[in-house]
Amino acid sequence: MVPKKPKSKLRIIPLGGLGEIGKNMTVFEYENDLIIVDCGLAFPTDEMLGIDLVIPDITYLLKNAEKIKGVVLTHGHEDHIGGLPYFLQEINVPIYGTRLTIGLVENKLREHNLLKTTTRHNVSQGDTIKLGNSFKVEFITSNHSIADAVILSIWTPAGTVVHTGDFKIDYTPVKGEVLNLHRLAELGKKGVLALMADSTNVERAGYTQSERTVGQTLEDVFNKSKDKRIMVATFASNVDRVQQIITAAHNTKRKVAVIGRSMVNVVKTASELGYLDIPKNTLIDINDIRRYNDDQVVLIMTGSQGEPMAALSRMAKSEHKQIEIKPGDVVILSATPIPGNEKTVSNVINELARKGAIVVKEDTHVSGHAAQEELKLIHALVRAKYFVPVHGEYRHLQKHAELAVAMGTPKANIPVMAIGDVLEINKNSCKIVGTVPSGQVLVDGLGVGDVGNIVLRDRKHLSQDGLLIAVMTLERESGCVVAGPDIISRGFVYVREAENLMDEAKNVVKKALERCETQGIIEWTQIKTIVKDDLRDFVWHKTKRSPMVLPIIMEV
Amino acid sequence: MVPKKPKSKLRIIPLGGLGEIGKNMTVFEYENDLIIVDCGLAFPTDEMLGIDLVIPDITYLLKNAEKIKGVVLTHGHEDHIGGLPYFLQEINVPIYGTRLTIGLVENKLREHNLLKTTTRHNVSQGDTIKLGNSFKVEFITSNHSIADAVILSIWTPAGTVVHTGDFKIDYTPVKGEVLNLHRLAELGKKGVLALMADSTNVERAGYTQSERTVGQTLEDVFNKSKDKRIMVATFASNVDRVQQIITAAHNTKRKVAVIGRSMVNVVKTASELGYLDIPKNTLIDINDIRRYNDDQVVLIMTGSQGEPMAALSRMAKSEHKQIEIKPGDVVILSATPIPGNEKTVSNVINELARKGAIVVKEDTHVSGHAAQEELKLIHALVRAKYFVPVHGEYRHLQKHAELAVAMGTPKANIPVMAIGDVLEINKNSCKIVGTVPSGQVLVDGLGVGDVGNIVLRDRKHLSQDGLLIAVMTLERESGCVVAGPDIISRGFVYVREAENLMDEAKNVVKKALERCETQGIIEWTQIKTIVKDDLRDFVWHKTKRSPMVLPIIMEV
Repeated sequence: MVPKKPKSKLRIIPLGGLGEIGKNMTVFEYENDLIIVDCGLAFPTDEMLGIDLVIPDITYLLKNAEKIKGVVLTHGHEDHIGGLPYFLQEINVPIYGTRLTIGLVENKLREHNLLKTTTRHNVSQGDTIKLGNSFKVEFITSNHSIADAVILSIWTPAGTVVHTGDFKIDYTPVKGEVLNLHRLAELGKKGVLALMADSTNVERAGYTQSERTVGQTLEDVFNKSKDKRIMVATFASNVDRVQQIITAAHNTKRKVAVIGRSMVNVVKTASELGYLDIPKNTLIDINDIRRYNDDQVVLIMTGSQGEPMAALSRMAKSEHKQIEIKPGDVVILSATPIPGNEKTVSNVINELARKGAIVVKEDTHVSGHAAQEELKLIHALVRAKYFVPVHGEYRHLQKHAELAVAMGTPKANIPVMAIGDVLEINKNSCKIVGTVPSGQVLVDGLGVGDVGNIVLRDRKHLSQDGLLIAVMTLERESGCVVAGPDIISRGFVYVREAENLMDEAKNVVKKALERCETQGIIEWTQIKTIVKDDLRDFVWHKTKRSPMVLPIIMEV
Repeated sequence: MVPKKPKSKLRIIPLGGLGEIGKNMTVFEYENDLIIVDCGLAFPTDEMLGIDLVIPDITYLLKNAEKIKGVVLTHGHEDHIGGLPYFLQEINVPIYGTRLTIGLVENKLREHNLLKTTTRHNVSQGDTIKLGNSFKVEFITSNHSIADAVILSIWTPAGTVVHTGDFKIDYTPVKGEVLNLHRLAELGKKGVLALMADSTNVERAGYTQSERTVGQTLEDVFNKSKDKRIMVATFASNVDRVQQIITAAHNTKRKVAVIGRSMVNVVKTASELGYLDIPKNTLIDINDIRRYNDDQVVLIMTGSQGEPMAALSRMAKSEHKQIEIKPGDVVILSATPIPGNEKTVSNVINELARKGAIVVKEDTHVSGHAAQEELKLIHALVRAKYFVPVHGEYRHLQKHAELAVAMGTPKANIPVMAIGDVLEINKNSCKIVGTVPSGQVLVDGLGVGDVGNIVLRDRKHLSQDGLLIAVMTLERESGCVVAGPDIISRGFVYVREAENLMDEAKNVVKKALERCETQGIIEWTQIKTIVKDDLRDFVWHKTKRSPMVLPIIMEV
């Protein structure tokens, strides 16, 4: 139940990114105005069999569509912009973001045929825009593992909210300026109602290293690998990393080839928009690599997470069309495995080692998220009355709340929210007053939300022990069997070596049907249940497995 | 092809544990004698859908069964003894191990009804046994994360081989003595033909900490948590850890309850055999916990890897019958996630935090495997002519080979082997001369080896997009459709919301059948193929999904 909202309060409703990693999306609502910060996607967990991606439930926004003044984006990563095409198909509102962010969004809109119908507004770091009567949003220079990231200062009649998006403090950024500490100090001095800050790395003590430290490592490795071919795998979206690889290549007189669809797209967009400085004659086409010696090239590629279809995994399995790994190749993994990917990454490393490649993964990556000391600095500068930890699993949100308490924010002023919670807030109070629909909408192929728990449960069942079908044709009037029963199985046992078992199963069904006949059971649902139960018991007894049992009756 | 073996050479054939973690098993063969070191299992990888466990392929042993003089065990962990019941069902030979190891094996044999038929020999650290005419095996005191572990010195006419099993060097072990460095030095002085050593932790610099450091941490945490209930999750098999938890509990005047089937079994066996010192009146039954205050109990339990059915996960999900997590409970994770389990462990931590528990995981675990400096010490003491890295993925074996090269072993004397490789070795030469059958035998329910690639491929397919069945009854003579076609799906879409799609699919099948009739196609395999192709194309076009399509034709 959503309680009526009093006029003078700001409502904050996270629809994604709290209690989970990914699909970040937050709603800000004041009277008849509503704005949205970010619209991301998440990658499916292991239990979401066959699912391509996960987006937030936007039921609440569909109901309040006429209020929406726009979507404001903090930066161009998938977990902040990847849900946009699905959102925009339902609700057509203008989007606002910095140039690189909008550039990356436009790639997506093009793929989804939404470019013509979507209004995009480029803003610059430092700009302020007005949205409806109740909101002014200022875009404050920030640092992250992609250029052109911003912290948002959202002015409302109820007070100002600072939303950090994803951030770190990089005193020596590869591109752009240091996070605008002065502006945060100024806002803090004026008075901030609430701070919403990134909790991803709150478990890490100290400071996150500058992106530039990776540049130094890369150049050291390049220098040490003088006569060897060099390959670097990283996130396509990490434009600053790509810049440093290109710079290191240029400094060591090597050409660069870019491999992997998403990597090619990002490099194209970022360089067109001026976020990548590529020295002349440095980029070469992958098909021209043969013209160069090993010591003249660097390959930048996708696959740092061991994704089976990405460039590096294909090479490791000798399945890549153009590139074959050979002994002595230096492969730099410039990324740490995202939790859940450790094993696949490890498999790729083993395959590369087997092929004689030298795998380098020490000091070749830094995080894009603030560690404890950086978070403390932001809290100290902004010194907001209320604090809402965002972007993290529950343990991260809780830890971030503890950090704020340690810095003096009263516990009562720190709502640890879940997605769907409705926070009503002004300078006198801050309270979770209800909930709106929220959750995970699963995208599978063209289907958005048509795969739910029942379908997933069936996929899980099928994946564990496969399937056993018992099919028979009965005569309508008499109920006599006129064809079958036949037994068909998939994913259960290798049938050629289990003919006896299949024959016995057929007999079990025959006997069940005979029993039905003797007992005068003619209701088909009942017959099906009996066949199913008998077959399941038989199979469990024989094999201790529980395949999905599917009785099918046809009638003539 | 297995080449003929010359009389004077020892053959070493690893059947598991190289190029993989787990299912350790190595064959030593000299003339008409054959002995086996360890017989472990491995846990299924993510791709092995529905599989319970994995054991080595023992085809070669079945062919040479009459030669086998016995199985020698290094310690009682699953990856060294878990394959025994399956092996012993095929080949009945005596087994040799230290008391705790044999005690743990006996638990397994009892479960598999093999206790009466299996000859077990208890040996003590320091003992030497004779096996056949060609082998003498000495059991050397070692350290690992379970008591009574041994390093084997295997004397053969071709020379002596030292096999470390899993080990670390613990100068302050919780139970028993420090690894017998003197004996290794003595053997090294006499001359060792080959060293086979654990590679699990070869990527770690320095020394692995003593098990006792964990004891100190536990006691510190217990002291700090005076008024709180304490729970500790760890590996059931880590008897020394369990000892330290019990000691810390006793020192802080708490009772101990043991939770989880495997934990209860191990504690029972280990305490009966004298490997656990449990002070009187310390152990209590889980059902008596209610009689004690929170500050009077410690619960030791399984589930440190986030295993869904283990005690801790059930508690985290509020699915445990006896124990409910409450705010303030201190939960100590005394284990690090095994690669691949990071995400499930993280989920458990989130659930515990959500329930208000305080999760402690810093300095609460040490590894049972030797790091680089310990490995170097063993290499230096044993100073074998040849070195065979064992127990590790390919990257670990390779890294261990590099370590040996750095210490002066010629590269030519370090065969980096794969399972199934046959190494022929004496003091003059060391060469991989062929291969024997080897690999992964999958255990699913009662089935051993009956699930292979085809079945797994089907399970994978079914898990991704589910299943679409088109069933119809045709008249034998005319080929006319007399019933159906019907469409049945599982794990594909939620049918109640996709009735149109199902109707359209039915029409597609009808049209395909009509086309067959018009074109005079009466061969059923052909009709099936046409139906399948049409249906698959239709579904892909409509949904961009590829369910398994199963056409079934019955005839009357």
